[in-house]
Amino acid sequence: MTENETLRAERFALGQAVLDTVHGDAGHGVIDSLADIAPELGHQIVAWGYGDIYSRPELEPQQRQLVTLGMLTALGGCEPQLEVHVDASLNVGLTPQQIIETFLQSAVYCGIPRALNAVAIAKKVFAERGLLPLA
Amino acid sequence: MTENETLRAERFALGQAVLDTVHGDAGHGVIDSLADIAPELGHQIVAWGYGDIYSRPELEPQQRQLVTLGMLTALGGCEPQLEVHVDASLNVGLTPQQIIETFLQSAVYCGIPRALNAVAIAKKVFAERGLLPLA
Amino acid sequence: MTENETLRAERFALGQAVLDTVHGDAGHGVIDSLADIAPELGHQIVAWGYGDIYSRPELEPQQRQLVTLGMLTALGGCEPQLEVHVDASLNVGLTPQQIIETFLQSAVYCGIPRALNAVAIAKKVFAERGLLPLA
Amino acid sequence: MTENETLRAERFALGQAVLDTVHGDAGHGVIDSLADIAPELGHQIVAWGYGDIYSRPELEPQQRQLVTLGMLTALGGCEPQLEVHVDASLNVGLTPQQIIETFLQSAVYCGIPRALNAVAIAKKVFAERGLLPLA
Amino acid sequence: MTENETLRAERFALGQAVLDTVHGDAGHGVIDSLADIAPELGHQIVAWGYGDIYSRPELEPQQRQLVTLGMLTALGGCEPQLEVHVDASLNVGLTPQQIIETFLQSAVYCGIPRALNAVAIAKKVFAERGLLPLA
Amino acid sequence: MTENETLRAERFALGQAVLDTVHGDAGHGVIDSLADIAPELGHQIVAWGYGDIYSRPELEPQQRQLVTLGMLTALGGCEPQLEVHVDASLNVGLTPQQIIETFLQSAVYCGIPRALNAVAIAKKVFAERGLLPLA
Repeated sequence: MTENETLRAERFALGQAVLDTVHGDAGHGVIDSLADIAPELGHQIVAWGYGDIYSRPELEPQQRQLVTLGMLTALGGCEPQLEVHVDASLNVGLTPQQIIETFLQSAVYCGIPRALNAVAIAKKVFAERGLLPLA
Repeated sequence: MTENETLRAERFALGQAVLDTVHGDAGHGVIDSLADIAPELGHQIVAWGYGDIYSRPELEPQQRQLVTLGMLTALGGCEPQLEVHVDASLNVGLTPQQIIETFLQSAVYCGIPRALNAVAIAKKVFAERGLLPLA
Repeated sequence: MTENETLRAERFALGQAVLDTVHGDAGHGVIDSLADIAPELGHQIVAWGYGDIYSRPELEPQQRQLVTLGMLTALGGCEPQLEVHVDASLNVGLTPQQIIETFLQSAVYCGIPRALNAVAIAKKVFAERGLLPLA
Repeated sequence: MTENETLRAERFALGQAVLDTVHGDAGHGVIDSLADIAPELGHQIVAWGYGDIYSRPELEPQQRQLVTLGMLTALGGCEPQLEVHVDASLNVGLTPQQIIETFLQSAVYCGIPRALNAVAIAKKVFAERGLLPLA
Repeated sequence: MTENETLRAERFALGQAVLDTVHGDAGHGVIDSLADIAPELGHQIVAWGYGDIYSRPELEPQQRQLVTLGMLTALGGCEPQLEVHVDASLNVGLTPQQIIETFLQSAVYCGIPRALNAVAIAKKVFAERGLLPLA
Repeated sequence: MTENETLRAERFALGQAVLDTVHGDAGHGVIDSLADIAPELGHQIVAWGYGDIYSRPELEPQQRQLVTLGMLTALGGCEPQLEVHVDASLNVGLTPQQIIETFLQSAVYCGIPRALNAVAIAKKVFAERGLLPLA
């Protein structure tokens, strides 16, 4: 192993700080659910996904969420992750209207079924946060 | 805005008429569910998807449904839309056997998992319409 | 082996006849290209894909091509197969206008990039068959 | 029909034997669920998928399951099939740790959302078989 | 037809203006290539995609490109469209570094192969615009 | 930065050693091509993909390649990566027949077009290595 335990813990801690900023407690839920089955995947999501990549300053958090909403919508079948990232998009200051506009634009590039599935997820998240109806 | 309100309403009305022919009341449910969150997506589905595209005479309704069943099966993760279009396929006169044959053919081009998922949706729709077992 | 050599040859012969009807010489090219590397895949395409599935009378050849064009467009990255099936669609009597209308409809369900890629393939096939410009 | 009823039954029987070895009773459930709606699809899964392809000696059962886990994870939206094949992977002797490692590797090639969805399915199967927590 | 010729021309003109702003002459190339085979698709891309959707003020042009880069990367097989949109991303003021960072992030959500394919397209566009090597 | 330069270099060196074992010089080509445009992606492929993940002992190199061939075939549009991994599969001792059998199996799960595209890549790699025709 090139990476000693101290380093591994430090990388995780950095990622954890980014994860908390973006997702709040919701991020912990995803990682905790992996503890008894795939803890290394949990570690990599935090240390690599958030620590190594997300933490880079080249894109703003809002920009990262817009890209991510586009990717998850296009991939399809990523409803659990889309729910987490619609929530995160609100956390970093995107408005509900901007999120919905992203999904409207996805109709052009991914087709209407993908757009409908994404809006259904947004509807669930917005309802839980008391944001419906949109003005 | 290049499109005045009268025109916008007319395009919507044309699409609505096509939508009703193909989907009956089920089409209204999809559009209504968008009213409080993404009304523009609802408008575009009706005015563009049905008014501009579906209404064109180059393909018959049965042909359009066959193409759509193929696309939704191939995309994957479009079970809600596939349910709506299996129902619509029956509405425009495709037989249950033709719909199932479409999904059998999808095994050749998309693989067996996609075919199985599509048949599971057909089973639900056919059961609701009292069409099972197929002879 | 449950299937003796005689039977295996008979199933292949049936599939070959269907393949010839749909694709003409173009079908042979695909199968021949597999001879030195994956002959069993070539056998299965003919014996299973065309012999077992395509030969079934539940859908007309034009209907099978419409479904297939929809699936290949939705899958993406299947340009070689789409080229073969645009050609086959013409062989079984679909008009160039119907093929293009299929791809126009794909914009609604798969998004505009997939539609553009499919039209580019049709443009190549139509040009080779002297069908451009479309009236 | 090139294939007489005796032959058809023999090919099915061979596939059934392979299916039983890989999936146990779970395989029967999938085929039985098709009986009243798409029996030909059920026949083809058994006679073609297992009888013609899976039975070939070129790959070991564990190798076939590894390939299949990779494909189903990459396709997305194949959770029901992934559940069946995580179960089958255990049946043919892959360890829970190897299955999870497969999904960890899928993060590199398919992205983290697909990996998370696959692990969630493994968690369900492992829990049903009393295999959690992984040591 | 609910939409008279005047209206249809007005919607197209609005879309054309947006298209020109985003893509410059490159947009014309795509539309022109459809003239002899799928002019209605060309019309819809301009009038609907750019006129109806892209022109909406809810997202800034840079935001729309970020979402689009994410979607096209995730879809896969959209290299021609990705080339057009990498170019457009530069046109609307995204820096090469931001575009590359978008593709680096796509490794997390779509996997490394999709990221590599997207970077290869960026490399081509950046080279044509004299932007390599990136500092 | 939680990771100092020494550590970063060490993680990269570990990954580089794994990469060399699997891909030989071909791996260098991919990383080198990123140097002037996306060096961080190159670093992550080596340090994360090979150093953190591929180096783990839970799966054998042949097993990792089988999973990867399955994923790349299923994803579609990953021909450049599939070429690299067909080559790597031979490097780690999979036989040409096992690789082709993997793609034959992919026909069952991903459909015949994806299988054909994968075999075409194998044909190219096998020809370059003087392995055709397969016995």
